[in-house]
Amino acid sequence: MRAGPSQEEIRRQNLGALLRYVHLRGATSRAELTTSLGLNRSTIGALTAELAAAGLVSERAPRETGRAGRPSLVVRPESARVYAYAYSIEVDRLRVARIGLGGVVLDRRQGERPPGLAAADTLPLLAGFAKEMHQSVAEDSVYVGSGVAVCGRLRRRDGAVQVRPDGDRVDRTLGEALGEVLFPHRPVLVSNAADVSAVAEHARGAATGYDNVIYLHRDVGIDAGIIVGGRRLTGQGGHGGEVGHMVVRPGGRPCGCGSYGCWETEIGEYALLESAGAGEDTGRDAALRVIDAASRGDANAQAAVRQIGDWLGFGVANLVNILNPGVVIFGGTLREVYLAAAARVRSRLNSMALPASREQVRLRTPQLGEDAALIGAAELAFEQLLADPLDAT
Amino acid sequence: MRAGPSQEEIRRQNLGALLRYVHLRGATSRAELTTSLGLNRSTIGALTAELAAAGLVSERAPRETGRAGRPSLVVRPESARVYAYAYSIEVDRLRVARIGLGGVVLDRRQGERPPGLAAADTLPLLAGFAKEMHQSVAEDSVYVGSGVAVCGRLRRRDGAVQVRPDGDRVDRTLGEALGEVLFPHRPVLVSNAADVSAVAEHARGAATGYDNVIYLHRDVGIDAGIIVGGRRLTGQGGHGGEVGHMVVRPGGRPCGCGSYGCWETEIGEYALLESAGAGEDTGRDAALRVIDAASRGDANAQAAVRQIGDWLGFGVANLVNILNPGVVIFGGTLREVYLAAAARVRSRLNSMALPASREQVRLRTPQLGEDAALIGAAELAFEQLLADPLDAT
Repeated sequence: MRAGPSQEEIRRQNLGALLRYVHLRGATSRAELTTSLGLNRSTIGALTAELAAAGLVSERAPRETGRAGRPSLVVRPESARVYAYAYSIEVDRLRVARIGLGGVVLDRRQGERPPGLAAADTLPLLAGFAKEMHQSVAEDSVYVGSGVAVCGRLRRRDGAVQVRPDGDRVDRTLGEALGEVLFPHRPVLVSNAADVSAVAEHARGAATGYDNVIYLHRDVGIDAGIIVGGRRLTGQGGHGGEVGHMVVRPGGRPCGCGSYGCWETEIGEYALLESAGAGEDTGRDAALRVIDAASRGDANAQAAVRQIGDWLGFGVANLVNILNPGVVIFGGTLREVYLAAAARVRSRLNSMALPASREQVRLRTPQLGEDAALIGAAELAFEQLLADPLDAT
Repeated sequence: MRAGPSQEEIRRQNLGALLRYVHLRGATSRAELTTSLGLNRSTIGALTAELAAAGLVSERAPRETGRAGRPSLVVRPESARVYAYAYSIEVDRLRVARIGLGGVVLDRRQGERPPGLAAADTLPLLAGFAKEMHQSVAEDSVYVGSGVAVCGRLRRRDGAVQVRPDGDRVDRTLGEALGEVLFPHRPVLVSNAADVSAVAEHARGAATGYDNVIYLHRDVGIDAGIIVGGRRLTGQGGHGGEVGHMVVRPGGRPCGCGSYGCWETEIGEYALLESAGAGEDTGRDAALRVIDAASRGDANAQAAVRQIGDWLGFGVANLVNILNPGVVIFGGTLREVYLAAAARVRSRLNSMALPASREQVRLRTPQLGEDAALIGAAELAFEQLLADPLDAT
């Protein structure tokens, strides 16, 4: 219940609003900025000049329009100059990207994650990639910070890592260590892969324009990045979004969490492989082989895919009733499961979700593909810049 | 992505912030307002004077403190003078209250809702109560608007009423009609009983201080008023919170929605009565008799209560995993079910919810009791006043 902002705060808010606009929409004419931000032309001119002086945007005349009169200058983000590092710690691989303002991937590296290597112990590998990329960064570039997307829940013996790390409840060991090794003057924010993927798809992907979004991400388990009313759902302690442990089948398959019939076990790789009669196989590639066999007409594989699709739709229907999202995105390996069983998912939704909510919801795959996690991790770092552009550079 | 506010907008924001503070916390010293709102003393003085001139607050010296120096003036909301009407349309009764700024019930009426009478057709009865109360309202009082809490989902043949009416997606027939009959110059906002009860308990009840709240309300079905990050969850089209149709038991009891095993059927009155061997009875009173019998040691009734408690805890555990709330409140007749079966609910939570989330969540009954719906409905009307105090009077 704080009171309204001061004059200086307003100026910073306006700078942030302008920078956010071009960050999300790319090159924009001053005329459009004037209309969209509800500020007058001279204010837009002054704000742009200030951001340009800080090296955050540039201005240039647009191409010939063929129309009479002086054309409106075009403001664009300095994508090649202002950047963040984005790290993605996945089940079986590690990725690092240098991402420019505006969400442009400027450079990237990736490698395998050695089996059994704890998330916090991936630090030297991640740092190595970043240092390697850093050698080719121009001297006048502006580093704004880093974001880390971590797959699944981190569990560690010493308790230093949160069960579900978040922008607010950071994995201090990993985040601080990364910052210390590399670029100590800017923050390193750690978050869940599903959360940052939701943020990325909301900012510039399949969920643009929707204020209520569920991004389902499957890697070790199933997590959801949930956006409610335009803002990320974190929950009271940063543990929200654990949809994989919603029980869909009382007394069903045992789950690692100690419960039975959790959603993530009923639609997981093991359930798919076992149903297809390939219970001795394990892992993502084996699961993808079953989906592939189903597409080629293998009856056992088709039955297994249908069964998984039913349970996938079951959980989605529950979430649709509870949250009334505008869009549900199937990310990670759920993308392939959804594409193979879309009809079953939709059928479950039709029989279980209330009409008003089910008619409204779009079911989609990630528009940013596998880059969602990296671009979302970078958004964590950019968010600080956008909140206060002149303080963060 | 609007830009920052103008000077005039800030003044209004500050007026709203000050008024909101005393609305929620009651009489407050200028000194505390200065600290809490982060404004200087002269600004607080000017804002208070402006609100006092508009008749929204009053100031007076505190009682003798025994300390040296001039004591800080105390600002209090003009609860007896500034008011809203709150209507509650329930399964079997109708309630109307006149509620003063600060959430004080100034006057109230209630009567039975004739069986079979559609929500929109309760208008003459509601209007009658309000008109009766209005005769004793002082002439210099300020009416700010009305709120209506409607139990369950409204379904009507003509489609004019939304499935789940909300502040944004109003039941125009009922809301407009009430406004036309009574006080046409101010808005009448219609919302779901669970939603406004959540708002009320969050503002001044069992959920004060929590930004993530689930208020479960049972009347015809089970609805949830959900607060995420301090704001009401409405969903993309105003249909969020339909937790009663989360399926907890695949292939379970048939539900009116066309699905099977919905949460609201598995913990509903019929399920309780049938389990207790009283399947020929119906209604709330019969259900309360079973709960009462259980408390007196009736074995059948105890078994039925345990079973319902199990399913109640089952659904709560799912919601806790998905949303990580700080508090879950059991309202309507769920209050009695919860109190009778709290151990079973907690046990389910322990076996199904993830440790980090379950350790954090408080299970509570409404602190405002049955007034939650009325006080919450009034909050809808006050919200407009608080957003812009001088425009709304």
